[in-house]
Amino acid sequence: MAYIDTNNDEPGIRELFTFRPETGAAMSQLAQTLLRGPSSLTPLERELIAAVTSHENDCFFCHNSHAAAANALAKDGELVARVLKDPDAAGVSKKVQSLLVIARHVAKSGKEVTPALIDNARAAGASDQEIHDGVLVAAAFCMFNRYVDGLGARTPQNPADYVPMGEMLATVGYVR
Amino acid sequence: MAYIDTNNDEPGIRELFTFRPETGAAMSQLAQTLLRGPSSLTPLERELIAAVTSHENDCFFCHNSHAAAANALAKDGELVARVLKDPDAAGVSKKVQSLLVIARHVAKSGKEVTPALIDNARAAGASDQEIHDGVLVAAAFCMFNRYVDGLGARTPQNPADYVPMGEMLATVGYVR
Repeated sequence: MAYIDTNNDEPGIRELFTFRPETGAAMSQLAQTLLRGPSSLTPLERELIAAVTSHENDCFFCHNSHAAAANALAKDGELVARVLKDPDAAGVSKKVQSLLVIARHVAKSGKEVTPALIDNARAAGASDQEIHDGVLVAAAFCMFNRYVDGLGARTPQNPADYVPMGEMLATVGYVR
Repeated sequence: MAYIDTNNDEPGIRELFTFRPETGAAMSQLAQTLLRGPSSLTPLERELIAAVTSHENDCFFCHNSHAAAANALAKDGELVARVLKDPDAAGVSKKVQSLLVIARHVAKSGKEVTPALIDNARAAGASDQEIHDGVLVAAAFCMFNRYVDGLGARTPQNPADYVPMGEMLATVGYVR
C-alpha cells in the first residue's frame, strides 16, 4: 500500500491515477502523446528510453512495466535486459544508443546533458526533433518514477506480473 | 539558443513548446491541472513547491519564473527569497513547510521520501490528497527542469525579466 490511503488495489501508477483521476487524466494524456503520438522515434524506441531511464532512477515498477511494453512491441522478451547489459550487442541502432546515453544523463540532471552528447546523437543520425523527443521522454520518466516511488505506490515484486501490463501498453496505450 | 535549432526566440520552456506544439500542449495542460486545477493546496502554495523544487534542481529558468509567479500571487516580491532563506520565518504554514521538505527529497529521488517525512506532513495538518499533490508537483518539476536544462533552452539571466512572466502565470495560468 502507498504512503497515503488510496482506497484501491491497483498496482503502481494506476493506484495513484485511481486515487486522483483529475491529475491521472492529464498524466495519461501526456504519456500517450510522448510515447505513442507522432514522432519519427518509434513507440518501441521511446519505450526503450522510458525503461532505461526508469532503471537509472531505480524505479522497479516503471522499469519493469516499460521494459515489458518495449519487449512486447519488439516481440522479444529479453530485449531490454540485453540493452541494459550491452546496447551495442543488443541490435539497437547507434542513433537510439546515443539517445539512451543522453537519457541516463537526464536522469542525473538536465545540466548533465552536454553539447558533446548532443553532437554525438546528431552524428549518429538523430534529428533535432528526435533529440528533443528523447530528452523529453527521459525527463518525463524522472517525473513518473518520482511520483510512484515518492508516494510508495504498490509495486508487484514478480517480474512476470508485468508481462500482461506490457502487452496492454503495447496494444492499447495510455488512454483507454 | 538551445542545443537544437528551435527556430524561434521565445525564452525557456516556451522556446521548446513553440518548437514542438504537440508535446507542448500536453505539458501545458498538465501544468494547468497540477498548479491551477482543483486542490486544497492554493495556487500560491503549489507555485512555492514548484519554485523550491526548481531551486533544488538548480534550474535557473524554472526557479525564477515560478518564484515570480508565487511572488505575484502573494503580492510580495520577496516571498520566495525568504522561504529559501528560512521557511519558518517566512510566514509559511507548518503544513506547507512540511511539503517543501518532501519536495526537496523528491528532487533527489522518489526513494528519498520516507514514511517519517509523510508522517511529519500529516502531523502538520496535510491531508492525503495534499501530500499526493505536493509530491506530484515536485515530481513534475523534476521533469520540467530537466526538459529546459537538458535541451539548453534560452535562459534570460536578469531576474527582472521574470517578473512579467510571473504576472502572466499568476493571472492567465498555463493554458491560453
